[in-house]
Amino acid sequence: MPAVPPWLAARASISAGKIAVECGGERVRYAELERRVRAVAHRLRGLGVRERDVVGVLLGNGLPFVEQVHALAACGATILPLNVRLTAAELAVPLRDSGARLLLHGRGALAELAASAAEASPGLKTALADPLPVRPDSGGAARSAAASAFDASGDRAIVYTSGTSGVPRGAILTHENFLWSAVASAFHLGVRPDDRWLACLPLFHVGGLSILLRSVLYGTAVVVHERFDPARVSRSLDADRITLASLVPTMLERILDARGDRPAPSTLRCVLLGGAAAPASLLERARALGFPMAPSYGLTEATSQVATRPPDGDANDAPAGLVPLLGTQLRVVAADGRDLPPGESGEILVRGPTVMRGYVDRGAASHGALRDGWLHTGDVGSLCADGSLQVAGRRDDLIVSGGENISPAEVEAVLLQHPEVAEAGVAGVADPEYGQRPVAWLVPRGGCAPSADALRDFCRARIAGYKVPVAFRCVRELPRTASGKLLRRRLAQDAEGGART
Amino acid sequence: MPAVPPWLAARASISAGKIAVECGGERVRYAELERRVRAVAHRLRGLGVRERDVVGVLLGNGLPFVEQVHALAACGATILPLNVRLTAAELAVPLRDSGARLLLHGRGALAELAASAAEASPGLKTALADPLPVRPDSGGAARSAAASAFDASGDRAIVYTSGTSGVPRGAILTHENFLWSAVASAFHLGVRPDDRWLACLPLFHVGGLSILLRSVLYGTAVVVHERFDPARVSRSLDADRITLASLVPTMLERILDARGDRPAPSTLRCVLLGGAAAPASLLERARALGFPMAPSYGLTEATSQVATRPPDGDANDAPAGLVPLLGTQLRVVAADGRDLPPGESGEILVRGPTVMRGYVDRGAASHGALRDGWLHTGDVGSLCADGSLQVAGRRDDLIVSGGENISPAEVEAVLLQHPEVAEAGVAGVADPEYGQRPVAWLVPRGGCAPSADALRDFCRARIAGYKVPVAFRCVRELPRTASGKLLRRRLAQDAEGGART
Repeated sequence: MPAVPPWLAARASISAGKIAVECGGERVRYAELERRVRAVAHRLRGLGVRERDVVGVLLGNGLPFVEQVHALAACGATILPLNVRLTAAELAVPLRDSGARLLLHGRGALAELAASAAEASPGLKTALADPLPVRPDSGGAARSAAASAFDASGDRAIVYTSGTSGVPRGAILTHENFLWSAVASAFHLGVRPDDRWLACLPLFHVGGLSILLRSVLYGTAVVVHERFDPARVSRSLDADRITLASLVPTMLERILDARGDRPAPSTLRCVLLGGAAAPASLLERARALGFPMAPSYGLTEATSQVATRPPDGDANDAPAGLVPLLGTQLRVVAADGRDLPPGESGEILVRGPTVMRGYVDRGAASHGALRDGWLHTGDVGSLCADGSLQVAGRRDDLIVSGGENISPAEVEAVLLQHPEVAEAGVAGVADPEYGQRPVAWLVPRGGCAPSADALRDFCRARIAGYKVPVAFRCVRELPRTASGKLLRRRLAQDAEGGART
Repeated sequence: MPAVPPWLAARASISAGKIAVECGGERVRYAELERRVRAVAHRLRGLGVRERDVVGVLLGNGLPFVEQVHALAACGATILPLNVRLTAAELAVPLRDSGARLLLHGRGALAELAASAAEASPGLKTALADPLPVRPDSGGAARSAAASAFDASGDRAIVYTSGTSGVPRGAILTHENFLWSAVASAFHLGVRPDDRWLACLPLFHVGGLSILLRSVLYGTAVVVHERFDPARVSRSLDADRITLASLVPTMLERILDARGDRPAPSTLRCVLLGGAAAPASLLERARALGFPMAPSYGLTEATSQVATRPPDGDANDAPAGLVPLLGTQLRVVAADGRDLPPGESGEILVRGPTVMRGYVDRGAASHGALRDGWLHTGDVGSLCADGSLQVAGRRDDLIVSGGENISPAEVEAVLLQHPEVAEAGVAGVADPEYGQRPVAWLVPRGGCAPSADALRDFCRARIAGYKVPVAFRCVRELPRTASGKLLRRRLAQDAEGGART
């Protein structure tokens, strides 16, 4: 499949009158979305966007984000979706690293953030991604798709993800990656022409972005929430005839709380639950209320879903764990690279058509993660006898907090910049609402440790708020291996133990 | 997408215990199907089958047909499915034309037919496609997919179709053609993990073959009927929890008759009705009984469906005609190649990822049908304002009789071999059961025409029974253009007029 039809234009030509996106009280049909995207693409070309350019997008959830996703593809450019919670210094890293030449941003605080990030990125232009007015209801006549086909192996997006080293790495995802992810997900979860997918996750993460792309392929509707408000999501599930929803465990918990244990609406046919391991108690609570749960393991480097438990399989056919998507192969290996038999835990390896082309030019890092087409996830799990997957945990240094991944090494590096900190270790501790929250252990330089408030302010000026430790603990020494490597798992165990006393 | 996962192996590794095929009281799960297919592929390699070989398959509907389809793909060979109703002389044409080196056949009459066809095809070997014993119930353990990936642009099947010239032409369909057909059909009709697709059409036609391939991609079940028996199909719809069925109008009519107007079972969510234009009265009758009708226009050269009306769209969104599949582009052109505006009738042109790579080496013929990627169907229709398609009729020389296409030129050529026939014209006349039946008009050589019985026997010895005219009419001259071209449409009109008197 060297060329694939341009998704949105092809879809608009056959589903002109179907609803594509609902957001903030606006309802956009496919013909109208395609018209808007053509206008935005025209504007982008005027800003100098050319084929193969990488363009940063600093926008919250909303129609402008949806438009940029498709308009950049129409220009042959690669979208670099950026986390709006990052600091300017943090944003400068992916912008520089990916070679972005333009940064599209929203109004207000995002405009200021973009301007600061641009200061640290020589040669980077910024532009306001202004929303276009929505035409009231322009279904009707379809246009023949004049848009040119996509090169299947061409880059569609670069999505940064926290690396083990603490340096964010840009996963390059192709049109083919997204196409296969959408197709395999369709065969896994089913597709209905009247599906309506709730997107209350950030669209700049791969989990949100992939909802947008697959819905256009399917010709179904996305209901985008501009921010996550549990009560609003709860109402939306009932009132907006949502059939599928992508959530992380923290969101689900808060939605159930907001609903006061009201049963799931009958229209809801699948809750795709990813981002972090779902606590069994949460799954039980949701299932008891009739929520059709589909826990999923995925990662940015595999264009979201890798293995998912189908929402309501026949009890006789129920798999023991998460079932890989069609075309996705899994291995579980020991530290020496040996394949492990079912039931034994090791590192999860993934290969298949959804696995990224590689990381943005980082030589060694890319080669380490991708060997022979196999993505070495660093995550721990085991295969079941039926080929399905049990995920024991994300790679042990990764903190997953309310759907955001936090690299402890990145936070430690910030703390070590503080003049009064000699050594720092960061680990995630269990949190009933967020799953995990980051906590810091410090060895102060000299006898006197800085105050928690001072440390918090120091971090806040440098990294996104969700990465700032919720507690700072002074210790005399950090647990290390004989070779001096920090044992973060031991820190976390201490914390769990401490919490019990 | 230069390489695609080997469908069956990938599917078996994740859906080992799901039912793949039910046929003749046997129920085969994906793990078992994959095991059988590996055994058959091993046997085929032993018979000398190599990559890129073309292998004829002369089998009725049944498990052996299903096995050969996947085993040949596993060998990297191209399947040449053959119509079991053809005569030995007719079979020899595609076998020679495609360069087939092996003909796999069934027992009894099919073995005799294969032997006769092989006599006329120097260098062609034949082999019995013996069914393997089914293991009772081998769900359970999945194997990691060791099968090698398919080259997306590689040939998967060559399917012969009656050409306008009366010479059958072999449409070469690639893995990518079938993949896109399956994917686009899924987005059009929806997919549910518990779907069960009824295949009572011949599997050697593209409409039947494509059910097999798409179901493996989807991981859903196919219920194969060995022959079309209206009462059995009717019972199967109720008892086998069929969710989708592919039918031609003649079949539907006979099923409704057999049901005595019993309403459709609630499990049935789509009847894909193709092969010939569906009479409005038949559609009304079926819909009144609750059959969710999806009339479709398709052709072999486009891997089956081109445009389909979704079964139960929202009444507000209902398209005026048949909606092209995602990625499929349509044009309607005048005789001079000019694009016609909506509402005006002309030739239907099709372009997209399901359109064949070309015909088997026939130089001029291929180039005529495919120009710039556009398939010139010869069929007549018009576009609606919303981009959907109205099909006015198949190309005017094609007779569609109970799901089989008949080329009048081919039948005329046979009649002209008869020593007492000077001129012959064949056209389809309306038939309440078959849609159309072939009728011949003859100008006898000398005063005395041969008897209808003699002509019938003469034809039966040379062409498949369904192609033999049901009536022979002697005339003094045939309607022709000034340049002498036969006006078959005029013949048909005469027949309709005659039927009224």
